[in-house]
Amino acid sequence: MKPQGKVLVAQGGGPTAVINQSMAGVVLEARKFANIERVYGAYHGVAGLIREEFIDLTQETTANLEMVANTPSSALGSTRDKPDLKYCQDILRVLKAHGIGYFFYIGGNDSSDTVRIVSEEARKGNYPLRCIHIPKTIDNDLVGNDHTPGFPSAARFVAQAFMGANLDNASLSGVYLGVIMGRHAGFLTAASALARKFPDDGPHLIYVPERTFSIEKFLEDVKRTYDRYGRCIIAASEGIHDESGVAIITKLSAEIEKDAHGNVQLSGTGALADLLCEQIKSKLGIKRVRGDTFGYLQRSFMGCVSDVDQREAREVGEKAVQFAMWGDRDGSVAIRRTGSYAIDYQLVSLESVAGKTRVMEDELISACGTNVTDAFHAYLRPLLGSDMPDAHRLRANRVTKLLAG
Amino acid sequence: MKPQGKVLVAQGGGPTAVINQSMAGVVLEARKFANIERVYGAYHGVAGLIREEFIDLTQETTANLEMVANTPSSALGSTRDKPDLKYCQDILRVLKAHGIGYFFYIGGNDSSDTVRIVSEEARKGNYPLRCIHIPKTIDNDLVGNDHTPGFPSAARFVAQAFMGANLDNASLSGVYLGVIMGRHAGFLTAASALARKFPDDGPHLIYVPERTFSIEKFLEDVKRTYDRYGRCIIAASEGIHDESGVAIITKLSAEIEKDAHGNVQLSGTGALADLLCEQIKSKLGIKRVRGDTFGYLQRSFMGCVSDVDQREAREVGEKAVQFAMWGDRDGSVAIRRTGSYAIDYQLVSLESVAGKTRVMEDELISACGTNVTDAFHAYLRPLLGSDMPDAHRLRANRVTKLLAG
Repeated sequence: MKPQGKVLVAQGGGPTAVINQSMAGVVLEARKFANIERVYGAYHGVAGLIREEFIDLTQETTANLEMVANTPSSALGSTRDKPDLKYCQDILRVLKAHGIGYFFYIGGNDSSDTVRIVSEEARKGNYPLRCIHIPKTIDNDLVGNDHTPGFPSAARFVAQAFMGANLDNASLSGVYLGVIMGRHAGFLTAASALARKFPDDGPHLIYVPERTFSIEKFLEDVKRTYDRYGRCIIAASEGIHDESGVAIITKLSAEIEKDAHGNVQLSGTGALADLLCEQIKSKLGIKRVRGDTFGYLQRSFMGCVSDVDQREAREVGEKAVQFAMWGDRDGSVAIRRTGSYAIDYQLVSLESVAGKTRVMEDELISACGTNVTDAFHAYLRPLLGSDMPDAHRLRANRVTKLLAG
Repeated sequence: MKPQGKVLVAQGGGPTAVINQSMAGVVLEARKFANIERVYGAYHGVAGLIREEFIDLTQETTANLEMVANTPSSALGSTRDKPDLKYCQDILRVLKAHGIGYFFYIGGNDSSDTVRIVSEEARKGNYPLRCIHIPKTIDNDLVGNDHTPGFPSAARFVAQAFMGANLDNASLSGVYLGVIMGRHAGFLTAASALARKFPDDGPHLIYVPERTFSIEKFLEDVKRTYDRYGRCIIAASEGIHDESGVAIITKLSAEIEKDAHGNVQLSGTGALADLLCEQIKSKLGIKRVRGDTFGYLQRSFMGCVSDVDQREAREVGEKAVQFAMWGDRDGSVAIRRTGSYAIDYQLVSLESVAGKTRVMEDELISACGTNVTDAFHAYLRPLLGSDMPDAHRLRANRVTKLLAG
């Protein structure tokens, strides 16, 4: 039995700079097919879906879709809901009532798990439904993907921010610490390495959640760097934890917010940066210590985007529709690297992606644990896109001193 | 007696995105004059000056100077030193020893005061020295200037950041608070207003140091906004204080760092944002409350710059040299607005600028105290430069619900 002619697209999880490219890719591609009667969008992901909060994107202009595609954050709104079986059955009930034959959900590993359950339930109930998960996450933690749309633009923001922070710190010296998003995967924090150009440029120390964090070791690292360069730039992931997996922020802080899934709140607070800076000041006696928490700036900053990311985010949306229309199975669109730099798209099984978390592979992290390897540079550089800014220095043509001894 | 043929340029205070434009403007313009033998740059402002730490910028290429001009932060390095009379006499001694006839200092109101004292001491000692102060500060707090170089680019960063934060918050709702630099002047915080496009866009509340801050009133404002829009975006200046002038951060926090001048550390810590968020959570019972402190990102972010700011920062450097060469007095280069949008440069007396602080004029702040006026929009918009990003929304062509009652 062929799916009915209505398409539904929705966006889940944290917004990115390019998630609307994928939405526009779905809508514009789906509208080309003669058997597609309507393309709906659900407000606020699955949360709006079960409340039937739909808009008709068949009645949206191509010009506006293109402008929205270039606007960061989720234009349809998003949700943090993580549906269980019952929730997914409600989703299916709404899809059936509206005659939806094609369901596209743009999101991370939680969203892919939702698509997996809905797909299964539709099959069990003999409802003809094509379900496709479209990848998105700044954390770059989806398995089976070379990288995920949204990550390259966020990585570009982090690299550009550290270029500036490095120059700022060089002009006034001291210690600078930037805390970057990433609970389990350190890709985004590691992106700070691409800010470096000259041999003494920061970040000098990079801490990712893939490696155990020790306060004592951290203070030694900072002291050694500060003694060497007279300054020190640090990039730390919000998810850094000790050997028993306890988040450093909980070790150093008293009141911690937890979300519905029992996850500690890591973003939207400057606590971790402040606590680490306090350690450096009190234990090492360094006076000028400054901490910034990049927070929400890094995922939705208007005007810092990778053109490679934009293009690929558009393509995963388009490919999702093509896989749905010309293929005969549900799945998740995955980005595979086929050259340097070239990619292709595959439809992989929902089971292979759903609910799993990728972390940085060992070969991307240097042996010392506080730096990245050349392999990481080779991996990330092409993703950042064109027209990356470049920092320049004056040449040191020293003038001979006349007064000093 | 004519000044001798050596030029010295230095940079003081906090870096900006365009301070190197002014340095390049001085160097490139000075190198055109036949009577100029050498153009020196001092490392780390007056701190390097008194240690005779000079580089010869006559031996720097034009190509590299142009690239450095486009690089944010102070390429010569900077300093927080605020020289007294003795310090300024040391400066003069070094200038004399090296036969410096022209001294250009790029900085804020503290730097202009240094230039004032050095100028006076040279005159008293009958040393022929032309001293020119070149304006720079992201705080926009120099008197006698329509605006100061560095402010437009930082303002652009703040506006772009709030565009993204507004979109991010709209997709997941809750309360978002961004803390922005500015101890006494709220210009940069007020720039967040230019992020708004649609009537319900944030920031919904803007708190500047020009108005007294009351926690009770703040919580009422947030509640009213949240009840109305289901979300709330707040821009707050780091310098907000109560009716007796006590900084809110000191009222809410225990351990506070003070600098050499007795100023409380406001930047490089997320404490104020965290403390205000904590108040909203505990007093208003709102669950998703997120605070970002823009910190150093806002003044040195690589890749967010106003082209108007770049051009003007270059011109104040060039004009400084022209005023020095063709004029017969010391002074500070000031930007005056002559049209919408057109500016001109004047050389004003050092006394009129030195050590004084401009704050936002009353007509720029709305009567309610938590918004800006149309006059502020008219003032700031042309400074942000060309190619400002623009946010777009999907049109709400609602689909009729079929299941819900």
